[in-house]
Amino acid sequence: MAVYTEITDDDLTAFVADYDIGRVVSLKGIAEGVENSNYLLQTDRANYILTIYEKRVAEADLPFFLGLMDHLAARTFPCPTPIHGRDGAALRRLAGKPAAIVSFLTGLSVRRPTADHCAQLGTALAQMHLASTGFPVRRDNALSVAGWRPLFDGSRSRADTLEPGLADMIAHELTAIERDWPRDLPNGVIHADLFPDNVFFLDNRLSGFIDFYFACNDFYAYDLAVCLNAWCFETDGGFNITKARALLTAYRRQRPTAPDEIAALPLLARGAALRFLLTRLHDWLNQVPGALVRPKDPLEYWRKLMFHRGVTDPGAYGLE
Amino acid sequence: MAVYTEITDDDLTAFVADYDIGRVVSLKGIAEGVENSNYLLQTDRANYILTIYEKRVAEADLPFFLGLMDHLAARTFPCPTPIHGRDGAALRRLAGKPAAIVSFLTGLSVRRPTADHCAQLGTALAQMHLASTGFPVRRDNALSVAGWRPLFDGSRSRADTLEPGLADMIAHELTAIERDWPRDLPNGVIHADLFPDNVFFLDNRLSGFIDFYFACNDFYAYDLAVCLNAWCFETDGGFNITKARALLTAYRRQRPTAPDEIAALPLLARGAALRFLLTRLHDWLNQVPGALVRPKDPLEYWRKLMFHRGVTDPGAYGLE
Repeated sequence: MAVYTEITDDDLTAFVADYDIGRVVSLKGIAEGVENSNYLLQTDRANYILTIYEKRVAEADLPFFLGLMDHLAARTFPCPTPIHGRDGAALRRLAGKPAAIVSFLTGLSVRRPTADHCAQLGTALAQMHLASTGFPVRRDNALSVAGWRPLFDGSRSRADTLEPGLADMIAHELTAIERDWPRDLPNGVIHADLFPDNVFFLDNRLSGFIDFYFACNDFYAYDLAVCLNAWCFETDGGFNITKARALLTAYRRQRPTAPDEIAALPLLARGAALRFLLTRLHDWLNQVPGALVRPKDPLEYWRKLMFHRGVTDPGAYGLE
Repeated sequence: MAVYTEITDDDLTAFVADYDIGRVVSLKGIAEGVENSNYLLQTDRANYILTIYEKRVAEADLPFFLGLMDHLAARTFPCPTPIHGRDGAALRRLAGKPAAIVSFLTGLSVRRPTADHCAQLGTALAQMHLASTGFPVRRDNALSVAGWRPLFDGSRSRADTLEPGLADMIAHELTAIERDWPRDLPNGVIHADLFPDNVFFLDNRLSGFIDFYFACNDFYAYDLAVCLNAWCFETDGGFNITKARALLTAYRRQRPTAPDEIAALPLLARGAALRFLLTRLHDWLNQVPGALVRPKDPLEYWRKLMFHRGVTDPGAYGLE
């Protein structure tokens, strides 16, 4: 949850005057998004989300994120659509920081996804991958395999304060994953952070994806790996093969996968687990007094990693 | 800012089924209200505010707060209106805690109030005082003069860590204020926390009051004293007599004040300043790591107190 910037009524009035979105009737800071300040902006015409980009998001990446949402929305993929100002620009400045307004996407995230939710997720994820082809801007995944060792180096000396032996276990895994990571798989623009928080449903029908601020170019199957971790484990740690099968089968119906993508899934899922383990470990070790976010348990992702390390066959994910 | 309770989609669906407000299309935690968890709830019919009452609000007081909003709204005073469930009850339970839905009040709070804003505030405050007559429930002001010494006792030993000598200065003031506090003035239901955050304007017309969770029975003029402190000082500490005159004159046009109310204003304003000094001092000294709220400067209210201590005549507030 996050509102790091206070917007004065005068600043807001001046900012909104550059858009053709009607008269502002309400602005509320919302507890959503860790990286940015988000506000629900209501005008006499519609609801919008106003985002102020705080320093954790690189300003140079903003044209990629906003352009991607424009590109997807133009292809009718359900996601927030950037609203352009009268001069055509979607990326503007407010309170001295980069800012943008996007359309308001209705829906609620599900707390306990069912197999049906997972199937809908798989369908929509494939549609997003297909819809993003042709998007001309590129953004490398800073949090893919090449980024994990520098991230680990920053936490290594204190990792054992969380769990004795953790530093050595991660080091061993990291080396193995770096060695075996695929060189080439079908790739394009991926969401890269598709947790249940970022997928909305209305009456159990998927209504869209939000929060594209980790989107990047990477293997399509890596997005599937992130989703397997975020959607298919039960709260007791058990892996739900029915949900995995529903997710993967629905995905492949929209975008048929190559054999090497499926073969790589266990390793990609280990890598995806390591990525969230490392960022959560970093956040755990660097808690800021007064911070607005309670850090999540890094070890949840160590346990997920262990599960995938034991997978030798795509049958473990419900595939034949 | 505050969202202390996470609401699952299943809990929400069950909760909303007891109302006749349409189908939920969105729920967002909002960064507003320090005492409670607040959410913007959208249905296919309208926007609402859903509040979960956290432990800082006494459950026994909730019928007073919700009943007051019902009473005021029925008299067309602009404020959030409690929405009643199908069984007639407005106060319900969600996620194991007391909860209520109120109507959504449009408007924005002003950061730098003008004299015109102050005049509108005065008019509306008098209207609220008049509209609340006949409200049958009573709630004593726990944060009036009788509550200040116990509050001070909890902070006294550490007050000088904020400012050397502060404990003695407060002790001296508190004794004087207790001694001179009026016994009897015109009284009824007051808002008691009418900071600019809690007053909305649309196109510079006052659209309503929010956050009645400090409302109580006390002297009407004490509400004016709170407003003098919260609205009529400039950010550099200077008291703006034009704003004070606008506030008081507009108020008295709606609700003529008795001579003893005006005579008591300097002391009431000192007391009101002491009240916010003491609660801010308490929050300052008891910061919780990871808390969602940055504490406000207690000394701002010491300086306001000092101003009122020098006032010998209502002329200082722009009155004749």
